[in-house]
Amino acid sequence: MTDKASTSRIPLTVLGAGAMGAALARAWLAAGHPVTVWNRTPARAEALAADGAGVAASAAEAVAASRLVIVCLLDDASVGEALDGVALGGRDLVNLTTGTPAEGRARAAWATARGARFLDGGIMAVPPMIGDAGSGGYVLYSGSGELFEEHRDTLAVPTGTRYVGEDPGFAALYDVALLSAMSGMFAGVTHAFALIGREDVPPKDFAPLLADWLTAMAPAAHQAAERLESGDHGKGVVSNLAMQVAGNATLLRTAGEQGVSAELLTPYTDLMARWLAEGHGEEDPAGMVELLDLRRGEDA
Amino acid sequence: MTDKASTSRIPLTVLGAGAMGAALARAWLAAGHPVTVWNRTPARAEALAADGAGVAASAAEAVAASRLVIVCLLDDASVGEALDGVALGGRDLVNLTTGTPAEGRARAAWATARGARFLDGGIMAVPPMIGDAGSGGYVLYSGSGELFEEHRDTLAVPTGTRYVGEDPGFAALYDVALLSAMSGMFAGVTHAFALIGREDVPPKDFAPLLADWLTAMAPAAHQAAERLESGDHGKGVVSNLAMQVAGNATLLRTAGEQGVSAELLTPYTDLMARWLAEGHGEEDPAGMVELLDLRRGEDA
Repeated sequence: MTDKASTSRIPLTVLGAGAMGAALARAWLAAGHPVTVWNRTPARAEALAADGAGVAASAAEAVAASRLVIVCLLDDASVGEALDGVALGGRDLVNLTTGTPAEGRARAAWATARGARFLDGGIMAVPPMIGDAGSGGYVLYSGSGELFEEHRDTLAVPTGTRYVGEDPGFAALYDVALLSAMSGMFAGVTHAFALIGREDVPPKDFAPLLADWLTAMAPAAHQAAERLESGDHGKGVVSNLAMQVAGNATLLRTAGEQGVSAELLTPYTDLMARWLAEGHGEEDPAGMVELLDLRRGEDA
Repeated sequence: MTDKASTSRIPLTVLGAGAMGAALARAWLAAGHPVTVWNRTPARAEALAADGAGVAASAAEAVAASRLVIVCLLDDASVGEALDGVALGGRDLVNLTTGTPAEGRARAAWATARGARFLDGGIMAVPPMIGDAGSGGYVLYSGSGELFEEHRDTLAVPTGTRYVGEDPGFAALYDVALLSAMSGMFAGVTHAFALIGREDVPPKDFAPLLADWLTAMAPAAHQAAERLESGDHGKGVVSNLAMQVAGNATLLRTAGEQGVSAELLTPYTDLMARWLAEGHGEEDPAGMVELLDLRRGEDA
């Protein structure tokens, strides 16, 4: 029963053999799936032949080889180019190419019009995490729930899976929202290290406090969500906006004292000051999300 | 042995009976410490009399009442005003007033010149966490290590303690650095919620993914610290700066598509683009900290 080429492992095709595509292909190969790969630059696909992959000479040949087709190319334009004129009827297309929600939706309509089922994916992992069940990585999926259900075991081979709805734009939306939030956190971390930069504080001594603090504060996202959902920004507020704006002054003065540019801090402190000026001083700051809406007021 | 007024509990004074000062005073009272309080507005101090506090008519009287004096006022200027002309010889001053590192250092010199030992503190907790041993809150302390060692059990009564060094500026430095990093994380969270704002995605459905993702990514602070300490930004890089800058384009396009202002994102993406332009594309981005140093280049 250890025959890796067991017939219970469905065959699949991987389009794109960059770092991520290759890692995915290797994970499926290691689990005994017959894998056909194609890459625009053939050498990268051929490198996977040693791991047992079949190498297709063209994207059309690769798509013809398996009903389940994983697409992991550079960007959405590359997907359009690679699959231009390729017969997709009856295929199950799983698009793991990085893109925006609108690209996911347009690509879903495009694939469906060509007779394919379509699932979009956003990979919350870097290539070394693929194939490592304990890495904590996962792929966000949205689009055809039928496709996802039929292939969920196969899709779960390289890393975790989270299906977030029929809207083919949601995988990219969630993906980008998570990465954007992480970007903010890393901006904060960068500023924090800059503050200690000229002091006699070894970064490795400070890092445990920093990582623990951010970990302790991350669940605040739940409270913000509750307020955004209920619309109640005033009940049971412990640290209201006015108090936080007052506290920001200390953060900004410290940056000045330490000779650190406050450019990563001021957009958020400015947003808080604007929300305060609109009369929300007694509230929790979660309602500030409204200020970022460029169509604010258009609904009226 | 349940006598809360046990003589083993040393007496102490709390200057300032705002939300935090009152929470601290109550925690010590509950543990059986004789507590004297003073507040500029007497009513707030008198509210603590019901919990067993002695109320002093002046800051001088309060300081005279106990060797250990906890100061928790509005800001550093308030500390100077309250203690102007007050005899501090032989006192152990623990200053939990919010301030900058420079204020901590200046206040330490001021107190030492008046014959007091001085410990500065930065409170990483909100008042409802004080007195709750499981809250995860703590106070960062720096300054007189002798003072801290002598009173560490007493200081540990209201919440956790972390002593970070003899430099009286370090408590505020660590405090502000942690709060600044948190501010960045919350900016990212705000942007993330704005992205889903007009979609059919309940914030409470998205929040668990968001909190889990940020929790999973917070330990990246350790890797950044290692690179900043070693100065090696090139070894074993999985996702280099050039790749991350390319990925940022998707974050920014998505903000545009969703009608969300990118003002909270662009300072960090701009910083990454500047570091890339300086030739660090193959590196981990941690070295960008240098770009925030306003005295960059002055050392040459």
